[in-house]
Amino acid sequence: MSRRTVLFVLANPEPGSFCHALVDAGRVALETAGHDVQVSDLYTLGFNPVAGRHDFVGAADPGRFHYQSEQARAARLGAFSADIAAEQQKVAAADILVPVFPLWWGGPPAMLKGWFERVLAYGFAYVDGYRFESGLFRGRRAVFAVTTGGTPARFSVDGVYGPIEDVLMPVRRLGLEYMGYEVSEAFVAYAAPRVEPEVRSEYLADFAARLMEVAALPVAPVRSDIHPLDLGPEAAWTRSG
Amino acid sequence: MSRRTVLFVLANPEPGSFCHALVDAGRVALETAGHDVQVSDLYTLGFNPVAGRHDFVGAADPGRFHYQSEQARAARLGAFSADIAAEQQKVAAADILVPVFPLWWGGPPAMLKGWFERVLAYGFAYVDGYRFESGLFRGRRAVFAVTTGGTPARFSVDGVYGPIEDVLMPVRRLGLEYMGYEVSEAFVAYAAPRVEPEVRSEYLADFAARLMEVAALPVAPVRSDIHPLDLGPEAAWTRSG
Repeated sequence: MSRRTVLFVLANPEPGSFCHALVDAGRVALETAGHDVQVSDLYTLGFNPVAGRHDFVGAADPGRFHYQSEQARAARLGAFSADIAAEQQKVAAADILVPVFPLWWGGPPAMLKGWFERVLAYGFAYVDGYRFESGLFRGRRAVFAVTTGGTPARFSVDGVYGPIEDVLMPVRRLGLEYMGYEVSEAFVAYAAPRVEPEVRSEYLADFAARLMEVAALPVAPVRSDIHPLDLGPEAAWTRSG
Repeated sequence: MSRRTVLFVLANPEPGSFCHALVDAGRVALETAGHDVQVSDLYTLGFNPVAGRHDFVGAADPGRFHYQSEQARAARLGAFSADIAAEQQKVAAADILVPVFPLWWGGPPAMLKGWFERVLAYGFAYVDGYRFESGLFRGRRAVFAVTTGGTPARFSVDGVYGPIEDVLMPVRRLGLEYMGYEVSEAFVAYAAPRVEPEVRSEYLADFAARLMEVAALPVAPVRSDIHPLDLGPEAAWTRSG
């Protein structure tokens, strides 16, 4: 067995949530099998999800805040704030990334969305010309683990919400696949607040088994052939959306 | 002409952003035509997008934080925090809701996502048994206004991101349509940071024209036949996801 490093990024404000139970079950299974597990419990960390000048030490342009330009400078100079740098270290070290969250308004909670925006910065997570098939994190794996209030029927093809794959598409495709991750089918604990305890136990066992399957898949070594420093000026990002 | 109240909810950290320019252009056109305009500029407000106990005065269950149960109690008792109550007043008064944001990682910035989560609370924006066709905001209208870094080609059917309608589906379908809003086709300023000034001018004129079209459409009167107080206990929400 090859040892993997797995990073859970957990965003649920209640420490007794089913999201937390999923992470605990996954951690035990993985660690028992000899894998390394890290957990970023964003609420417990008091993570700040708001992108802003506080993300950086210094500034490329003190007069106008263009986020990606500031991120590009910080990636070059190692000038990210300490909270961002700490999360980036965890992401850089992880073979497998597992965001765990309740589906709120069709997507991850703001807490997790802001983690994406601040941590997965231009120059660290992606650069011009290197995305998807050539993404900087190509060869690594990811799994979304999601709890929903809605039942499977509501997420069926004929259901009011439509298939969960379509609901998670933006964060999968324009998020992790954009970085190069190979994203496995999402693990979904449907109607987590409403189901019986036996079903919740099944969810936990199934999730642990899924993670063990993913951990058994090959991962590519981290590529060292590309570095943001080599990529020249970020000409495309001179004006703000 | 019937006078409409239009609420822009704006989430871009740079006051000189093209999102801000869109709101300015829309505001001028609408006010010139006699409509009422409100703007929630979330970064300028210093809005806190993190859901938590600070959302409420008092608690339904001090021992366990279940967000929707706390929201239901706050809706019954008028116990939302002042920042949330102020935003809810604006939403309640608006015939037309216009979220304006840059597309980051496939969705609205955490700042706007958190506004959805905190302001559009259970008991205010939706309740069990009243959603979509029977949603509490049925008869009102909404338009997303989005700036992207990516070109139209990237958002085509064969493009790497796929159609913008699919990207915006979760926040449209599981967000505003869930509440009952009739959501018009999104206004998208593609590649806003990269296009020439003339194209940006066209975007601004087109956006103003689109808003005028939407303002000319009928809206239904606010329904007063449903109130969260009538809907009994929130039995479905006794355990947390």
